Amino acid sequence: MNLKQIGFADTRIDGGFLYRAGKLNEDVTVKAVYDRFYETGRVRAFSCSWKEGEPGRPHIFWDSDVAKWIEGASYILAKRPDAELTAKIESVIDDIEANQWEDGYVNSYYTVIEPQNRFTVRGNHELYCCGHLIEAAVAYYEATGRDRFLKIMMRYADLVDRIFRVEHSAAFDTPGHEEIEMALFRLYRATGLAKYLTLAKYFVDRRGQADADVPSHESFNRLYQQDVPAREAREAVGHSVRACYFYAAMADYALETGDAGIADSCRAIWHDIAARKMYVTGGIGSTCFGEAFTVPYDLPSESAYTETCAGIALAFFSQRMLLLEKNAGYADVVERLLYNGIISGLSLSGDCFFYENPLEINLRNHYKIKATRDRLRLPITQRVKVFECSCCPPNMNRLLASLGDYIYAVDGDEIYVNQFAPGGFASGGLRAAVETDYPLSGKVRVRTEGAGKVHVRIPGWCESFRASGRYVMLNGYAVFEDSDVTVEFDMPVTVIRSDVRVWDDSGKFAVTRGPVVYCAESADNGGRDLRSVLLPSGCGKDAAVIPSERFGLPELELKATAELPDTSGRLYFPVSGARYEDITLHMIPYYAFANRGEDDMLVWFSGLSG
Amino acid sequence: MNLKQIGFADTRIDGGFLYRAGKLNEDVTVKAVYDRFYETGRVRAFSCSWKEGEPGRPHIFWDSDVAKWIEGASYILAKRPDAELTAKIESVIDDIEANQWEDGYVNSYYTVIEPQNRFTVRGNHELYCCGHLIEAAVAYYEATGRDRFLKIMMRYADLVDRIFRVEHSAAFDTPGHEEIEMALFRLYRATGLAKYLTLAKYFVDRRGQADADVPSHESFNRLYQQDVPAREAREAVGHSVRACYFYAAMADYALETGDAGIADSCRAIWHDIAARKMYVTGGIGSTCFGEAFTVPYDLPSESAYTETCAGIALAFFSQRMLLLEKNAGYADVVERLLYNGIISGLSLSGDCFFYENPLEINLRNHYKIKATRDRLRLPITQRVKVFECSCCPPNMNRLLASLGDYIYAVDGDEIYVNQFAPGGFASGGLRAAVETDYPLSGKVRVRTEGAGKVHVRIPGWCESFRASGRYVMLNGYAVFEDSDVTVEFDMPVTVIRSDVRVWDDSGKFAVTRGPVVYCAESADNGGRDLRSVLLPSGCGKDAAVIPSERFGLPELELKATAELPDTSGRLYFPVSGARYEDITLHMIPYYAFANRGEDDMLVWFSGLSG
Repeated sequence: MNLKQIGFADTRIDGGFLYRAGKLNEDVTVKAVYDRFYETGRVRAFSCSWKEGEPGRPHIFWDSDVAKWIEGASYILAKRPDAELTAKIESVIDDIEANQWEDGYVNSYYTVIEPQNRFTVRGNHELYCCGHLIEAAVAYYEATGRDRFLKIMMRYADLVDRIFRVEHSAAFDTPGHEEIEMALFRLYRATGLAKYLTLAKYFVDRRGQADADVPSHESFNRLYQQDVPAREAREAVGHSVRACYFYAAMADYALETGDAGIADSCRAIWHDIAARKMYVTGGIGSTCFGEAFTVPYDLPSESAYTETCAGIALAFFSQRMLLLEKNAGYADVVERLLYNGIISGLSLSGDCFFYENPLEINLRNHYKIKATRDRLRLPITQRVKVFECSCCPPNMNRLLASLGDYIYAVDGDEIYVNQFAPGGFASGGLRAAVETDYPLSGKVRVRTEGAGKVHVRIPGWCESFRASGRYVMLNGYAVFEDSDVTVEFDMPVTVIRSDVRVWDDSGKFAVTRGPVVYCAESADNGGRDLRSVLLPSGCGKDAAVIPSERFGLPELELKATAELPDTSGRLYFPVSGARYEDITLHMIPYYAFANRGEDDMLVWFSGLSG
Repeated sequence: MNLKQIGFADTRIDGGFLYRAGKLNEDVTVKAVYDRFYETGRVRAFSCSWKEGEPGRPHIFWDSDVAKWIEGASYILAKRPDAELTAKIESVIDDIEANQWEDGYVNSYYTVIEPQNRFTVRGNHELYCCGHLIEAAVAYYEATGRDRFLKIMMRYADLVDRIFRVEHSAAFDTPGHEEIEMALFRLYRATGLAKYLTLAKYFVDRRGQADADVPSHESFNRLYQQDVPAREAREAVGHSVRACYFYAAMADYALETGDAGIADSCRAIWHDIAARKMYVTGGIGSTCFGEAFTVPYDLPSESAYTETCAGIALAFFSQRMLLLEKNAGYADVVERLLYNGIISGLSLSGDCFFYENPLEINLRNHYKIKATRDRLRLPITQRVKVFECSCCPPNMNRLLASLGDYIYAVDGDEIYVNQFAPGGFASGGLRAAVETDYPLSGKVRVRTEGAGKVHVRIPGWCESFRASGRYVMLNGYAVFEDSDVTVEFDMPVTVIRSDVRVWDDSGKFAVTRGPVVYCAESADNGGRDLRSVLLPSGCGKDAAVIPSERFGLPELELKATAELPDTSGRLYFPVSGARYEDITLHMIPYYAFANRGEDDMLVWFSGLSG
């Protein structure tokens, strides 16, 4: 049996870092994203009233932006009524309903701009928009019980089924940007209608086998995950968001059908990512060219693409693998993402966003590019309020409004505690209550009612822990039979290495504490050149851990060494002539970088062994 | 008074590394370059008989390619007669003479392809070709006494003077690619005619002040060294070959006129290069975009542009600065280039060439680019026989045929020994004889006749030396009054650092011995990932120095450490879990990399202090 996730609606998070992130989203981010989407014409686009020459010309992916926002807003409505949010959503649904085609088609771009060309250009995000609208409709239905939007999208899904699976009358066979697969599995679960499972499976199975979809160059087949059929895939390839949306759908496939072949592919692909293609922050996608995975161990810090959406997609995929295989390693990656590579996409103010989440900012390189018109491309250095392609902000909305999905799961009467936050859940006779200030400390108390056993994840980063009672280790979980257990993870400041095959990190060390990856910014360190800092392998031992209200996660101070410029003007000299000084390096949680103006930032420092 | 260079024609090099390089050029490279230029149509282009549809369509810079070859071949003729070389050169001169325009114009491209458009497009290398033809004509005249070619080029120079300086009737005021400036100073020295000095000075002074030359974007002004007038320039900017040809001409200006303002600019620019913009190999030009200097301390190893021609241009500039200022630091840079960043442009076989001379080859990145169609650009990994833009090979011809220029200089009756090679010179009553196996050892014996003092350069890399007699140190030279002196430089294997501001080298060490920079190739080290190697700061002490016939410079073996991949499949882990092994690292002279097939190569290794 698979694990059954306890949904966010049944889960309480009462405090701590994840609570804070969810609260910021509710208080600021959801409204900010809506306002930007309103100002840019994305919301109004659904009215299908745009005329040539007006601002706000509909764009092929705008439907998906608003859909993700509706999905996120719906998760908030699931917890508490909000008349304003409801009115905004209902207004969009009014527009969608009014402009749905006779045959069920919904798309604000094609309806207004080129209705004669629907389903002709694979790369135009049509089914991607459809998928996000389906997810939004399901979320709104599950949150409010209102089924108007759901019925609209079921009619559209029925059209897609006829056009693509039955008639093959579109100009392409599978979507250019995956998403609809996940949405159809979800629609199946929400409605119980087998036809949606059939269509979801069709899109997964068909991928990589349809002549109509094949472009001219092999690398494009990899870019779009169609180099091999899903059942033969063993590595993560191509556009990292599309890839992980597809892999998440493959995991859904395995979850819903028990298909062992698909599960084998999922497992191999996931390990290819986690062991060879994932940044220490959990971020994925090593290059801006194709926004893509590249080759194993290619993880450059400064030019990292690591799109916020790709991190979210990997969390989706990992969470499904956790349900499928009950192995704590999957939840480790979810945790890595939640505390680092996803949340870095949002400003502390809650209204600005990163698309890319690099692991280094070296302003000298940015200056060089400006000064020389070099064609190198580096991520932007400051979060912005909205992007032309603004997929990440509403993705943040929906993720942060549903963080409760990731905390607990059950298998019969056995409870799994996958992430650590104060709170609990009650569902079907099972209850759990958790007390913790994690990750400020590593102490977690779990009390359960009605449970046979409780499985407490022992994080992959944890080298030692103490438990209140007897347990056995199973798949990365400490399994207890007691109904009141306390686990305390030792959480030292730890100097870490990448596997040496990660060539960009050769000779470099980073700092973590528990699930939190640290970085330094130049401004906290007297403007020092961060590349001049040497991080001693033993510097974690005496590091100061400083609680920090501004970041919600501790800041660190540790003893390090900095190399000084040569005073005699030599560019090259014997190493015996190099001069160093002892310094205190101030570090902050990685996710909080770039919140205080443009600055140098570094995660991987030159290492000093000894 | 300036130093007076003892020319290659008066200088003997009897053995050692420089002799070997010159011999390879004479025996193989000069012929190989001619043959490639013949096959590609470059030689035949001078006949101006090409017809549309035929192969070998003349190209705007082809004249300069053949001119540089003639210059190099002439230097060989200066030392010994060679009927075949002479016949080849005379045949080209026949063609040039037959196709010179009535008014003196010479250019195989414009004459055949678009005669109506001469002097209209600044970027079309017209004056650059003219300059190289002038240098070739002077070299051939000085080598053979034959003045036919010289007279042809004097007529062309007279035309250029009229069009550009007197009439201002061209569409631009100064050359898009500098070179003619240096050539005109040379023509002035060869002929004694002041008009050529006037024109040379005009082109230098006019640069950066002519409205007709200014393109739309400021960065282009820097790219072409016209952001400020020469007299105000203080930093090296833009296209590195054009820049250093221009700076060399500025130094000629100062040498010929004693102009202190120009000398101030030269000094500042040279130090900007040597202290902030030069690779440890002497290479310059940090980016392929614009083939250009970028910003201070931007010296990436793998994407280094470091064009062979740019290294040669920096040697020209440095040598002139040495004559101007009598400071050994300038000769240090010439040496750095001769043993490393220039000679790396030529294969051991003598017939293949690098345009770019990177300091790292990491084939994984090349594979990545192929696999993903990433738009990153890296240097090629194997030398080739000819380039589309084949400026470097004939530049190698002329440099290696005139290495004798760089060894000795005189100031009245004082002799300067600037580079170390067995041999000597006799000129104007002064004689020197040098015995040395430099740089196999650091022992150099210099005997002089007729000299007042002898100045022996103490190389910048040298931390300690012994001398046979009394000396005083002056401008980096040990100055002796004896006529028979022996100096012995200690020449340990030395682990070096870049100034910490070179961010690409942060935490990294390299290895040198005397003037020679070392690299490692994976093939010499059991296929080991060179990025996994940690170079201990003390590893020079017990290094084995192994004489090597194949490279003509010693190879090294030294004790290092290599990090091993994690066996448990973890991508990130505490540094305490990293595993290492002791290894013997085999290193070869940098210049000899990539002579045994495609391979990883590294100069700057992760450093291990302690």
